[in-house]
Amino acid sequence: MNDTKQQPGEEQGWLQSVRWNGDRLDLLDQRLLPEQIVYLPLRTVQDVWDAIRELKVRGAPAIGIAAAYGVYLGVCEEGAGTSTSELLGKVRRDAEHLATSRPTAVNLFWALDRMKACAEGLAESGTAPEPFRAALLAEAQLIQAEDEETNRRIGEHALSLFQDGMGVLTHCNAGGLATARYGTALAPMYLAQERGMKLKVFADETRPVLQGARLTAFELQQAGVDVTLICDNMAGYVMSKGWVQAVIVGTDRVAANGDVANKIGTYSVAVLAKAHGIPFYVACPLSTIDLGTKTGADIPIEERHEDEITQGFGKRTAPKGVKVFNPAFDVTPAEYVSAIITEKGVVRAPYEENLRKLFD
Amino acid sequence: MNDTKQQPGEEQGWLQSVRWNGDRLDLLDQRLLPEQIVYLPLRTVQDVWDAIRELKVRGAPAIGIAAAYGVYLGVCEEGAGTSTSELLGKVRRDAEHLATSRPTAVNLFWALDRMKACAEGLAESGTAPEPFRAALLAEAQLIQAEDEETNRRIGEHALSLFQDGMGVLTHCNAGGLATARYGTALAPMYLAQERGMKLKVFADETRPVLQGARLTAFELQQAGVDVTLICDNMAGYVMSKGWVQAVIVGTDRVAANGDVANKIGTYSVAVLAKAHGIPFYVACPLSTIDLGTKTGADIPIEERHEDEITQGFGKRTAPKGVKVFNPAFDVTPAEYVSAIITEKGVVRAPYEENLRKLFD
Repeated sequence: MNDTKQQPGEEQGWLQSVRWNGDRLDLLDQRLLPEQIVYLPLRTVQDVWDAIRELKVRGAPAIGIAAAYGVYLGVCEEGAGTSTSELLGKVRRDAEHLATSRPTAVNLFWALDRMKACAEGLAESGTAPEPFRAALLAEAQLIQAEDEETNRRIGEHALSLFQDGMGVLTHCNAGGLATARYGTALAPMYLAQERGMKLKVFADETRPVLQGARLTAFELQQAGVDVTLICDNMAGYVMSKGWVQAVIVGTDRVAANGDVANKIGTYSVAVLAKAHGIPFYVACPLSTIDLGTKTGADIPIEERHEDEITQGFGKRTAPKGVKVFNPAFDVTPAEYVSAIITEKGVVRAPYEENLRKLFD
Repeated sequence: MNDTKQQPGEEQGWLQSVRWNGDRLDLLDQRLLPEQIVYLPLRTVQDVWDAIRELKVRGAPAIGIAAAYGVYLGVCEEGAGTSTSELLGKVRRDAEHLATSRPTAVNLFWALDRMKACAEGLAESGTAPEPFRAALLAEAQLIQAEDEETNRRIGEHALSLFQDGMGVLTHCNAGGLATARYGTALAPMYLAQERGMKLKVFADETRPVLQGARLTAFELQQAGVDVTLICDNMAGYVMSKGWVQAVIVGTDRVAANGDVANKIGTYSVAVLAKAHGIPFYVACPLSTIDLGTKTGADIPIEERHEDEITQGFGKRTAPKGVKVFNPAFDVTPAEYVSAIITEKGVVRAPYEENLRKLFD
């Protein structure tokens, strides 16, 4: 499993984060990247819950896909039930449980709702247990296939905002590893690469968990994209040098008013971009836009363990007992967002009005 | 040497970064903090050069102090010379060599010039070799004692800008460890603590070398100051929550127009502070102000090895062969600086005029 250039069944330079493997879900353990490429076999709902909780899988769309397969794994577990109505009960309980694995990513809830709705529809129409299970697997696979197509479209729309030779800064990882394929914020970089268009990408390393260093720099390097790794605190300096013409990031949830929750540090990057007159773009599928969340103030911000900051890499780098503040996300107010790029196109302010139109 | 609470000959809660020990310079190895408290015995000019180069000692004033003692160590080396004029030649060669250990910190050059001037004065007045050596040691000790007094005064002036209960954010380490004692940016925090005034300090961890986590959080915690450690990319979010009423940092060089070179990431913090209407203060001794440097554009910015970013925690955290940009410093334009606080008081814009007045 050490040959990162060529994985069985995969095209060169492309690593699939979540893949269905007959009777189990194989999940690329993203905590071990870039040093080790290890797929974990998940066979139960609890396996999936743990994997999401422990950040083995991360990225809003990939979490949603994993959770969808988790629902299917649940109805295959021993004791799940023998009748369709028992299986439906299991789907409901498992969806409720899986929803507690991470609090911020709306795709998780979206995917679980979709699996639940599918199950309810199947039960209503009197589907027998075996076809009920098969249809749930097909639904999870459809969510995954749709995500790849969605991201390709996001990439096309984002690329329409970029020119050859531009410098583009990104934060965290909204790449292929965070989704079925292509990613959201990184999708235009992959499409540009396919077409011989050159972008110069700056990847923030993204403390504390270093998704930018471990994942974004890794997957772009694998694909041959020109990527330069920087520490988060260098973004302002790089902008002041005139090296960045656009910022593009993913998001875990967009509120109805255009406020954007994303990895901690995104807000700082947005403020810096505005101060330098650089457009700040957010790329996401429609499923990340939550019209039920009125503003960013309504988005719960998960706080994570202090060890991520004080000894995140196996070595203590801060004094014992020091107080730590470790929010996993922050909210960027809509006024800093130049555009939100979805599979349906590029949306600009006023967001309240224009985001709602996407769902008409 | 593991009892961090009480070092021989030191007051509780205070670690001296550079201390003269009879025939050698004992230097606290700051790269090992906070896990290990180890003093390195330095006996030659080259020992001092290496210690500065390898960041065992860091902080502009502490580097200057170490370099001054280095000049004295040089004239005590075997083969340094038997006549005063030979010793003066050695001082000149050693000062030139020591000046190459780090390119950005102006205190280094300032301390070396002062030692050279002292040596030249001694030679001119026909001082014999032994008193010549003794006077150079006394000069290095005076530089150290003056630094402590300077910092106490900086602390007094800075404290006049703070109120009880305020949140104060700092970046990197401009503390006691960076100086003879008290530090520059941290001096008001120590004085506040002595007087029972409560400040709530946020310390940026300061990637890549983590001086904020390893040193600032450590020394403030030792002194009982209320300090919370955050990642650099959280500064904007913490400001947006209204938790920060002032930012204060040290500096490696202030140009004649008020542009400030400091640890990478300082510029981003300054831009964020301005966007949130938070004053951004720079604390430094007069020796850090270089009227010979016209603007920040004239300050050389050192780039350091990529390993600091890709495997700074002893473990590889970025893919092999990835391109890295690793500037050690950045320049914050004077327009972002609310005040520069020196031992002579608080200086505000227009800096070109008001900084010059300090030297009248």
